[in-house]
Amino acid sequence: MISTWFESAPRLVDVAMGRTPADMVIRNVRWVNVHSGEIIPTTDIAISAGRFAFVGPDASHAIGPDTEVIDGERRYAVPGLCDAHMHVESGMVTVTEFARAVIPHGTTSMFIDPHEIANVLGLEGVRLMHDEAAALPINVYVQMPSCVPSAPGLENAGATLGPAEVGEALAWPNIIGLGEMMNFPGVVGGDSRMLEEIGLTQKSGKTVGGHYASKDLGLPFHAYAAAGPADDHEGTSLEDCIARVRQGMLAMLRLGSAWYDVAAQIKAITEHGLDSRNFVLCTDDSHSGTLVHDGHMNRVVRHAIAQGLKPITAIQMATLNTAQHFGLEREIGSIAPGRRADLILTSDLPSLPVELVIGRGRVLAKAGRLAADIPPYDYPETAKNTVRLGKRLAAADFDIQAPAGANEVTARVIGVIENQAPTRALERTLPVSDGIVDMDLEGDVCQIALVERHRGTGGVTNGFVSGFGYSRPCAVASTVAHDSHHMIIVGTDKSDMALAANRLGEVGGGVVVFSEGRELALVRLPIAGLMSDQRAEIVSEEANALIEAMRQCGCELNNAYMQHSLLALVVIPELRISDIGLIDVTRFAPTDVLVAN
Amino acid sequence: MISTWFESAPRLVDVAMGRTPADMVIRNVRWVNVHSGEIIPTTDIAISAGRFAFVGPDASHAIGPDTEVIDGERRYAVPGLCDAHMHVESGMVTVTEFARAVIPHGTTSMFIDPHEIANVLGLEGVRLMHDEAAALPINVYVQMPSCVPSAPGLENAGATLGPAEVGEALAWPNIIGLGEMMNFPGVVGGDSRMLEEIGLTQKSGKTVGGHYASKDLGLPFHAYAAAGPADDHEGTSLEDCIARVRQGMLAMLRLGSAWYDVAAQIKAITEHGLDSRNFVLCTDDSHSGTLVHDGHMNRVVRHAIAQGLKPITAIQMATLNTAQHFGLEREIGSIAPGRRADLILTSDLPSLPVELVIGRGRVLAKAGRLAADIPPYDYPETAKNTVRLGKRLAAADFDIQAPAGANEVTARVIGVIENQAPTRALERTLPVSDGIVDMDLEGDVCQIALVERHRGTGGVTNGFVSGFGYSRPCAVASTVAHDSHHMIIVGTDKSDMALAANRLGEVGGGVVVFSEGRELALVRLPIAGLMSDQRAEIVSEEANALIEAMRQCGCELNNAYMQHSLLALVVIPELRISDIGLIDVTRFAPTDVLVAN
Repeated sequence: MISTWFESAPRLVDVAMGRTPADMVIRNVRWVNVHSGEIIPTTDIAISAGRFAFVGPDASHAIGPDTEVIDGERRYAVPGLCDAHMHVESGMVTVTEFARAVIPHGTTSMFIDPHEIANVLGLEGVRLMHDEAAALPINVYVQMPSCVPSAPGLENAGATLGPAEVGEALAWPNIIGLGEMMNFPGVVGGDSRMLEEIGLTQKSGKTVGGHYASKDLGLPFHAYAAAGPADDHEGTSLEDCIARVRQGMLAMLRLGSAWYDVAAQIKAITEHGLDSRNFVLCTDDSHSGTLVHDGHMNRVVRHAIAQGLKPITAIQMATLNTAQHFGLEREIGSIAPGRRADLILTSDLPSLPVELVIGRGRVLAKAGRLAADIPPYDYPETAKNTVRLGKRLAAADFDIQAPAGANEVTARVIGVIENQAPTRALERTLPVSDGIVDMDLEGDVCQIALVERHRGTGGVTNGFVSGFGYSRPCAVASTVAHDSHHMIIVGTDKSDMALAANRLGEVGGGVVVFSEGRELALVRLPIAGLMSDQRAEIVSEEANALIEAMRQCGCELNNAYMQHSLLALVVIPELRISDIGLIDVTRFAPTDVLVAN
Repeated sequence: MISTWFESAPRLVDVAMGRTPADMVIRNVRWVNVHSGEIIPTTDIAISAGRFAFVGPDASHAIGPDTEVIDGERRYAVPGLCDAHMHVESGMVTVTEFARAVIPHGTTSMFIDPHEIANVLGLEGVRLMHDEAAALPINVYVQMPSCVPSAPGLENAGATLGPAEVGEALAWPNIIGLGEMMNFPGVVGGDSRMLEEIGLTQKSGKTVGGHYASKDLGLPFHAYAAAGPADDHEGTSLEDCIARVRQGMLAMLRLGSAWYDVAAQIKAITEHGLDSRNFVLCTDDSHSGTLVHDGHMNRVVRHAIAQGLKPITAIQMATLNTAQHFGLEREIGSIAPGRRADLILTSDLPSLPVELVIGRGRVLAKAGRLAADIPPYDYPETAKNTVRLGKRLAAADFDIQAPAGANEVTARVIGVIENQAPTRALERTLPVSDGIVDMDLEGDVCQIALVERHRGTGGVTNGFVSGFGYSRPCAVASTVAHDSHHMIIVGTDKSDMALAANRLGEVGGGVVVFSEGRELALVRLPIAGLMSDQRAEIVSEEANALIEAMRQCGCELNNAYMQHSLLALVVIPELRISDIGLIDVTRFAPTDVLVAN
């Protein structure tokens, strides 16, 4: 924990005046000043009590015998980078391991929405990640998940959160606001629970995160803005971000592992001249592989600069703008007196090599390697063993009965579209054997099952899916199944499906690939069935092995695992699966697997 | 009182969706969008519950049979203007009369520091103006005065405020932060009371106002920034404002009745390209005459545009930037859904004629005339009759004794400098008659007296002053005497001095001019001896009569009355007067009127 500015002020004043030596002085840097928008040469920085005490041309007066002096060698001193909105769970690692992975990339502040764990463990899960975050040497603020379950009435998640839980969490020290308000139809329809969550957050003076995932910029969009969400990261087009900023919302431009929403929207600044202050950068979802191999916010800033943005503007969008949005501009986001001493030294802005990372006045990483000891966080047993199947599954659990006497049926089939989140609602004619509907592997139709895993009801929802291209007998099972995080199994062989399900039950969750009775790959995710207790590097390797195993089974789809894990996302059209059945997301209602004749 | 956004959100959403008619729709305006920095043609604005419900190309869906529809006639719709820092008392009127005067100029938000009344009435005075402010139809936020008295040890004001009072006031609904922290030597010296006031304000999440009135941009300036003040309006030069913004402080550029600090500093933006977001405009001190004849924030915005600033940038500096600084960007400062419906219609931005003013969704002014009924605020008797002299003064009270047997003496004389706040410490040889030191009217040396008026001690501090040019027998007395607001009398005739003092005692304070036993002019200021209970127009006329009377007495000095009222300001060098004696402000210590031989 870092002391507050006001607790440290007497010491900061003494250091600035030369009455007390600083803990650290960094000499001779180029000061990337996000307040003035300037780059100021030949600057010294004095740090005390984890905060900046003096930033000016000469800090020699602040150097005492015990002061750690770092030669900045005319490098640029950039404020530590902030990720304005993200889900740690997407990396399949804990907050601690996420931090260990991104600190060497220069990230020193993150605004995380633990929406996934909330769907499994409810408020307790949020509190666990909140407490883990608070113990870290970087600044991890938590947004209270607003929509658990995501689609009330269409699914049962592991927990239900509402205004009472939001009100409780808003009093926790590290809760910075409400997580993305995804239930935009509810908001514009005047749903009192959603408006109450927004109101409680506004009343507490905190920030309401938005999520308006619709192309309709007409009345519903305006009504959504009038309800109070203060930002949105779901924009994808130039029109989207311009509309949001005009309505007084902050546009969060997203470059995640699979989101590429910066290039189109950044033109609002580079080509249309909009004031950049209401734009920020974020990742939303990063896989471990991206963190290990490509970077984090440094990757986003580089990308934004490559799109033609001035480096200082891109840096503002990952530092000061974000801090201001969350009411933290006097705490983080700039190199200025009183703020937490979070900074990067880099020798070039456009390519942004992160050569030294300082967080709260301590060297946290050097030359891309973590230099600080950050102990792992022990999750309690209640956060593990969350996969409760209620029984051992057998192949017969996946049988789909045909109507008596039918030789073939017409079935509704979830059609996966490569590189897109929406699915198609297909219909296929399928043969029947012994009263059971068959798959059609030649036609790329295999089975999908959603296994209830929070309450051990033994419930299994069966259906069909097309688009993965599995050509061998196999099954892929995952307890990461947005947003309710039951277990999704996709398979061409019901015995493999049963093996895969039971295996995840044994290990407490994760992702597994079986083929002909053999386990080809396993990523263990013991924490809530969502997160590993291993390093990001290990998870990244395991995830690569998983993708390789899926390929061996015939699946060449890009981002196939992501497609798999989104098939229960009953808020995005057209056809999905949930614990209450197959869901027609064009009508927001359950539907039957078999089309009635 | 206006309902909160979240209380009104269900209705705003309904209006935006077309389910409920708006209270008011303004059609066909050019939307000055301070978020995006654009001017967007052909916009409609729907208002409900005093807030913007919809801002877009067509609000016909929000018009019902009872909706008031205003044709915007393609005028610009500008957010209501904000004054980021000001003292109502400088207008010598109440908050209500100040508001009545400035609403027709387009001001809909003010951040007031009731520092003057606090020196007379303490926390009760702050509370009175706070409560008066809260009753108005525009947004008047109050900064809690931080330095009462201004110079502890060098003067006794009518009250003392400290951390306990600051802590108490921070819980009041309309307190937005701490008023200008003027005691910068205390702050950089580590004065624990000053740092505690700053800390209490930071802890409450509110804004600490700064006041660093020094040319020294070295270590003390850096230490002041490290202590926590978040803004400063005392900069006068280009270097001043650049230094402040670089250190993460907001630069408030001031154009008051007698402050002309915009032109030099605005070059930081227009010529040096600094990011304008950390610059705002304010007035600090406006006389009634300025409000009546020249304007308020519209005058400042016009002036900033005339200096070469883009109109949209100048408007941001009087709207959104100010709102953001005080954490109110979701409440005021822009025309966007959810915000208070405060706006101006104008047909031209550079000349900014204020043709219609809407505050919280009501028409408040049309064509420069107030259109709303704003009742006067009744101050209680405790706020009046604050001039307690303890006795009737006589000419002899102003006698300055010479040392026994002296024929002449060397006296310290306060030297007024035209158009500047600092004074000179002069020495003059003066004759002695009957053991009493004489004035030297030919040498422009007359007498000054400070009469204790808060506790009725009967105390009179006598001294000499030069520079007013009074050539007739006369006296000018004022209970506006920054910052302790005792009574200052300057006169060439001791009988007139006594008459003037007693007259102000009778009327409960104000400013009066006597000559040869006759009252030439009187401005009654019954509220705390600082403010009239009359309209700004009347006060302005009375103040003009006062200046004319001073001229008749031979005073041709520019801003002579202001010079008069600043002679007890014991924080600005070189020589001042207080209730404890003549003060040498180069040494911050009392000194004798007569130089010892």
